[in-house]
Amino acid sequence: MNPRENTRQLHLGSVDVGGGALVSVQSMCNTDTMDASATLAQITGLEEAGCELIRVALPSKAAYPSFEEICKKSPLPVIADIHFKHSHALAAISMGAKAIRINPGNIGDMAKVDEIIEAAKAAKVPIRIGVNAGSLDPYYKEMGGWSLSDKLIASSKAFVRHFESQGFYDIALSAKAHDVLTTIETYERLSEELPEIPLHLGVTEAGTFRQGTVKSSLGIGHLLLKGIGDTFRVSLTADPLEEIRVAWDILAAAGLRRRSPEIVSCPTCGRCKVDLVALASKVDERLQEVKAPISVAVMGCAVNGPGEAKDADIGVACGNGVGSIFVQGTIIKKVKEDEIIDALFKEIDERF
Amino acid sequence: MNPRENTRQLHLGSVDVGGGALVSVQSMCNTDTMDASATLAQITGLEEAGCELIRVALPSKAAYPSFEEICKKSPLPVIADIHFKHSHALAAISMGAKAIRINPGNIGDMAKVDEIIEAAKAAKVPIRIGVNAGSLDPYYKEMGGWSLSDKLIASSKAFVRHFESQGFYDIALSAKAHDVLTTIETYERLSEELPEIPLHLGVTEAGTFRQGTVKSSLGIGHLLLKGIGDTFRVSLTADPLEEIRVAWDILAAAGLRRRSPEIVSCPTCGRCKVDLVALASKVDERLQEVKAPISVAVMGCAVNGPGEAKDADIGVACGNGVGSIFVQGTIIKKVKEDEIIDALFKEIDERF
Repeated sequence: MNPRENTRQLHLGSVDVGGGALVSVQSMCNTDTMDASATLAQITGLEEAGCELIRVALPSKAAYPSFEEICKKSPLPVIADIHFKHSHALAAISMGAKAIRINPGNIGDMAKVDEIIEAAKAAKVPIRIGVNAGSLDPYYKEMGGWSLSDKLIASSKAFVRHFESQGFYDIALSAKAHDVLTTIETYERLSEELPEIPLHLGVTEAGTFRQGTVKSSLGIGHLLLKGIGDTFRVSLTADPLEEIRVAWDILAAAGLRRRSPEIVSCPTCGRCKVDLVALASKVDERLQEVKAPISVAVMGCAVNGPGEAKDADIGVACGNGVGSIFVQGTIIKKVKEDEIIDALFKEIDERF
Repeated sequence: MNPRENTRQLHLGSVDVGGGALVSVQSMCNTDTMDASATLAQITGLEEAGCELIRVALPSKAAYPSFEEICKKSPLPVIADIHFKHSHALAAISMGAKAIRINPGNIGDMAKVDEIIEAAKAAKVPIRIGVNAGSLDPYYKEMGGWSLSDKLIASSKAFVRHFESQGFYDIALSAKAHDVLTTIETYERLSEELPEIPLHLGVTEAGTFRQGTVKSSLGIGHLLLKGIGDTFRVSLTADPLEEIRVAWDILAAAGLRRRSPEIVSCPTCGRCKVDLVALASKVDERLQEVKAPISVAVMGCAVNGPGEAKDADIGVACGNGVGSIFVQGTIIKKVKEDEIIDALFKEIDERF
């Protein structure tokens, strides 16, 4: 009952996607592809934050030289994002992209799609077929009596079958909508109807940071909990670094992978006598430097604090100007309120 | 197949919980209960943001007069949050709380719990039994060989059966953990094993804004999608206003209720020629003033922009210094980049 065990495995440079591989995290550069150094700097920052695959747009012939340099120097496998012109896809394959993403519906002519397929097959470069609500094949777009899911699925299946008819099987599939329920329904049905195809999950045009985080957490997380999805992108109208941080929070919340410390902290309430929001924010900020996937509790009162903090690897329960620091169930010291952060991180540094 | 249709209905002032009522949004004041005016100001702000039930701590006898004033003047039904002292629960009931929340495990003596039950029954005040991972009844806490879900469920069921044995049925139940998978498992089983009890959902001590939003969206949202949950609180170590905003984003994403406009906006990418993050943030900010639950698209390029913007009630697709404003599928005007916001909101004001 774990669909992602049964998909075909693709190899994008050093990263495996599908066939039970770890669910991988990806993002997309929002730099100008013509500016290789800015793009490479962004990729490096994203890699440090935990990004594992990076998509880069190849929108014009003028961007070919910088795209080639990016592919050569990128610390992450580069997926070329291609729209409209099949010649850009052919160029991306020849310049070292580890995968390409196309929407065959906006390439238009299937003979041109077949040229891409041939080139990808020869170079062993996987293709993500990226159908989405905003750029649905015109043929399906006009159909009456079909739900958006029906259209996304029919269009996806038609393309997958066409690629396979050409002897090409290194396919991943995405079919994103900006509506969470449509996204969930579509991917659940794709997982049943095309059980062998690795799925790239995402809620598209999910919106600004807060709304996009909610929609992606629910849409992507719900599918991941059902064993659906081999790789995913959180799409936010925000710095791509935030996409990666949210992506890892989703993986951790879904119990799949944990990369960094977890912070367990109270909501504040009328019982709370310390500025817990400020304290937890400071702890969270300094935890960015900590790599061990430990659980750190920051609790504001005597009610739930000690109980929760005992479960965590390390924690502090505050009250009456004093912070009690716990390590795996044992209070090891009490410190004054303004010494909590330093005392906590001294213990973290020494112990983990 | 919608468990929330089958729970008993509770009446908290003007708000119904359970029995198929709208899933209600609640938060908790983090002001000092002794400061009635600060607490009432916070409640008013929360109500404006969409909060429907408000919990207020009653931690001491000294807070009784202000608590009574808060109950009298609050625009929202007040739920008293009681820990340890059953006398505070009795006082809250007599002072006009519309419900009380207790964890019978930390009241201790069941004879004292029975006094609360009798008073609540006489006053027709519902009780939320709030068991949670951090303050589990000591009896269950020490049990070996039980998962945390097993303990939360056993403790919850024992208390529910006890309350019912006293002829008291106006019960809601919460059993929160800070781990999403434990939370989901616990509530799914409670919904099956106690199908008549309205459930208050939440992931407790979920952490700072980003991590807490991800965990709550997945944990609460996943349950809501399964028809489980009659009311909920998003717990964030952040301003309670953020809890309400995230709560409504979850309800909207789960397709249950929508209170405010939805913004559909691209992730930025290498194809994007405008500062879309800034533009979308400005639109999002001005949309706080708009009450109509319309869908507003802010798109950065020619690829998905026009297709998505056509689905939205109103939208703008940007490119080359020009914004094309659409209304329900038709371009109604093109404006310069620095005029986009004003032109968009002029149309929204006139049309919705």
